[in-house]
Amino acid sequence: MTMSQLEIQNIDQTVLLWLDDLQKDTISAMRHHLQVGTKHDERDLVTNVDKANEQKINALIRSFDVNAKIVSEEGFGDKPTAMNGHVWFVDPIDGTMNFVKEHTDFAIMIALYVDNQPVLGWILDVVDNVVYHGGPKIGVFANQLRIQQPGDDSLAEGVVLLSGARLLYGMFGYDQIAKAALGYRVIGAAGPSFIRVITGQAVGYSSKMMPWDFAAGQVLAKTLGLIVSDIDGQALDMLSSNIVLVATKRAHRDIVELHKS
Amino acid sequence: MTMSQLEIQNIDQTVLLWLDDLQKDTISAMRHHLQVGTKHDERDLVTNVDKANEQKINALIRSFDVNAKIVSEEGFGDKPTAMNGHVWFVDPIDGTMNFVKEHTDFAIMIALYVDNQPVLGWILDVVDNVVYHGGPKIGVFANQLRIQQPGDDSLAEGVVLLSGARLLYGMFGYDQIAKAALGYRVIGAAGPSFIRVITGQAVGYSSKMMPWDFAAGQVLAKTLGLIVSDIDGQALDMLSSNIVLVATKRAHRDIVELHKS
Repeated sequence: MTMSQLEIQNIDQTVLLWLDDLQKDTISAMRHHLQVGTKHDERDLVTNVDKANEQKINALIRSFDVNAKIVSEEGFGDKPTAMNGHVWFVDPIDGTMNFVKEHTDFAIMIALYVDNQPVLGWILDVVDNVVYHGGPKIGVFANQLRIQQPGDDSLAEGVVLLSGARLLYGMFGYDQIAKAALGYRVIGAAGPSFIRVITGQAVGYSSKMMPWDFAAGQVLAKTLGLIVSDIDGQALDMLSSNIVLVATKRAHRDIVELHKS
Repeated sequence: MTMSQLEIQNIDQTVLLWLDDLQKDTISAMRHHLQVGTKHDERDLVTNVDKANEQKINALIRSFDVNAKIVSEEGFGDKPTAMNGHVWFVDPIDGTMNFVKEHTDFAIMIALYVDNQPVLGWILDVVDNVVYHGGPKIGVFANQLRIQQPGDDSLAEGVVLLSGARLLYGMFGYDQIAKAALGYRVIGAAGPSFIRVITGQAVGYSSKMMPWDFAAGQVLAKTLGLIVSDIDGQALDMLSSNIVLVATKRAHRDIVELHKS
C-alpha cells in the first residue's frame, strides 16, 4: 500500500524529534562518559553510545511501526532476509573512530524502505546539529532548508571521497579514481561523505559499506538526481555489503568506466 | 629587542580585528563572485579572493609594522633572504581547492617571527569563524577560549593526517605511516590539518609545504608542546619548502623512526 505525502511528512517529523533528543545525549556522552571497546579488530571501535543509541532508536521504531523489521549495526535489530513491508535501517554512530578520536565527522543515520523502495532517509551531523532528511515524495532538506539538485561536474572537475583503508591497500581501483579526479579526500565516515556529495561539495564517494552505512544516503542522493550503485554500476543489495558508489551522473560514468578498464 | 607581553597582546588584538573583516569578505565573495584560475598546473587553483586577501593583509602589515618583511603566497610580498628582524608570513587562502569546490576546510593564516623566533600565529577557520591564535608568551586560544596542551598519544593510538597527492604517488613513506596509524585522513589543506593536531583531534600531520603553509601552525603547535620539524626530525627552513611533520612527542618519534627505516 502506497503511503500518502502527509503520512510520509508525519513519519519525517516524528524521526526528527527522536534525533533532536539523540543529538543532545550523544554530544553530552562524547564529552563526559565515553567507554571505548573494539569489535572485529583494533581499528573497529564501538562505544557505549553506539549501543545505547541503537537500543533507543530501535525501541522507538518498534513502538511507532509495530510490524516493521530493523537492520542495525550493533546487534539489537532483526536479521530480515527479504525487503518486503517496512524495513528500517539504523546506524547509531556512523564513523565511530572519528567520534572517539576527532570529535567531528560522524553521524547518526536512519532510513525507511517500503517494499524495497526508498521512502525516507535521515543523516544527522551531530556536531553541527544539522539533519539532512527527506525522500522522493517530499524532497531533501538540511534542517528546514530545501536542498537543490547539485551540479553535474565530471570526476576531473571535482573532489572525490574514498575509503582510506581500501585506497591504502590498493583495492577497487581507488588509486586510479583518485588520480583521475581533480582531488581526493578521506573523511573516514559514510554519513559525512554522503552529505558532501548531496550538497555538491564533492562529485562522488566510494567505500565498501554495510546496509546501515548507505541506506539513508541512497534515499537522499537518488532524490536529488545523483546515481547510487555498486562500483560496477549495478543496483545495491540492501541486505549485504556492497562496494557503493554515489556520484553525479558524469562522475558516475567516469568512475564505472575507470573501474572496468 | 625582545617584545613585552603587552606589546604581543596588542599585535594579537590588531590582527584579530583584520581577520574579523577578512572573514566576512571571504564568505561573501565565496557565495557571490568567485573567479577561479590556475597557476602551475590544473590542480593548483587561485581565485580573485586569494589575491585580494593578500593585497589587503600585506597593506595592513606594511602600515602597522613599517620595517617588516613579508613572505606571502601570491606574489605581493617581499622575497627576504634572511630571518632577521620582523618577518610576517601570509597565506591569504589556504586550501584553495577546498575553498572553491568544498566550501569548507580552508583557512586564512598569518604569522609573525622576530629574529627567526616564533612570536605569534593566527589560523582562521573561515566557515566556522574560529581563529586559533597565540604564541609562546601568551598561550594559544580558539577565539577567546584558551586551548590546553593536547595528550601524548602514539601513532598507533591516533588519527594521522597526510597530503593526499604525496600518499597517492608513494612519496615520503606516507603509506607506511598510514598503515601504522590507527587511521589516516586526507583533509586537503594545511591550516585545517594543523587545527586538528593542535586541538588533539589528530596525533600528527605531514605534507610538503611552503613557509606560508606552516609558519602559523608551527607557532601554535610548539607553544602547546607539540613537535614541529621536517620528516627527518630536523628544524624547518623558514625560507624554503620543507616536508613538514607536526605531531605529539610520541607520534613524532614513531613517524621519524618509520621514515628512517
